[in-house]
Amino acid sequence: MGDETVAHFLLGEKFTALSGSVYGGLVASLLDCHGTGSAAAFACVAENIDLENTEIIPVRCVTASLKIDFKAPTTMGTELELIGKLRSIEGRKIWVDMTLSAGDILCATGEIFSVHHIPHHPFFL
Amino acid sequence: MGDETVAHFLLGEKFTALSGSVYGGLVASLLDCHGTGSAAAFACVAENIDLENTEIIPVRCVTASLKIDFKAPTTMGTELELIGKLRSIEGRKIWVDMTLSAGDILCATGEIFSVHHIPHHPFFL
Repeated sequence: MGDETVAHFLLGEKFTALSGSVYGGLVASLLDCHGTGSAAAFACVAENIDLENTEIIPVRCVTASLKIDFKAPTTMGTELELIGKLRSIEGRKIWVDMTLSAGDILCATGEIFSVHHIPHHPFFL
Repeated sequence: MGDETVAHFLLGEKFTALSGSVYGGLVASLLDCHGTGSAAAFACVAENIDLENTEIIPVRCVTASLKIDFKAPTTMGTELELIGKLRSIEGRKIWVDMTLSAGDILCATGEIFSVHHIPHHPFFL
């Protein structure tokens, strides 16, 4: 893990929208989860926090803004691949660019602006 | 129904993210659903389709792009109100602006670019 994160999902049929295609809200949810998780991982790397050390409380991020562009129907029955790339970190603010693909097909792109969540502080800027 | 749509939701606890707050992916899903539904309703009004006539196949829309700005944590246990306002229609393209509120608190805003889906044609432009 440097400045890129990868996740794979195979979705069940209950997430179908139009016949044979994944529900768009689920695509948004996957991009939200992968985005905040990636932002937290990138923040750990930037702060030299060892991701393998489970005794350290990990960084947790919340979403401030999420943009999704749907490029093609997301086919059911194909393993989905999510890739997150760090765009920039400025203090508690982290921006990540994402893609969601089914095989060779680029189904959606996502941009997330995530904020390092400090417990007992207001969530948002 | 003229150029505004309203929907209400009361969510169960399984949609909790951080303690007491609704999961962001669910907020995105609600805005996606309300956005495409609103776009379809606005398209019907624009085309003088009677929404009460169930013998006519209604317009169905798919999401091309969705942007969500999270303004405050969405509190669990409070009925949520979604409001959609028509921004513009150009042929098959429909833009809708949305808000998601819990009581007096504006929790999120959304912008959707939706496309009138023609069956057996490619989904996207």
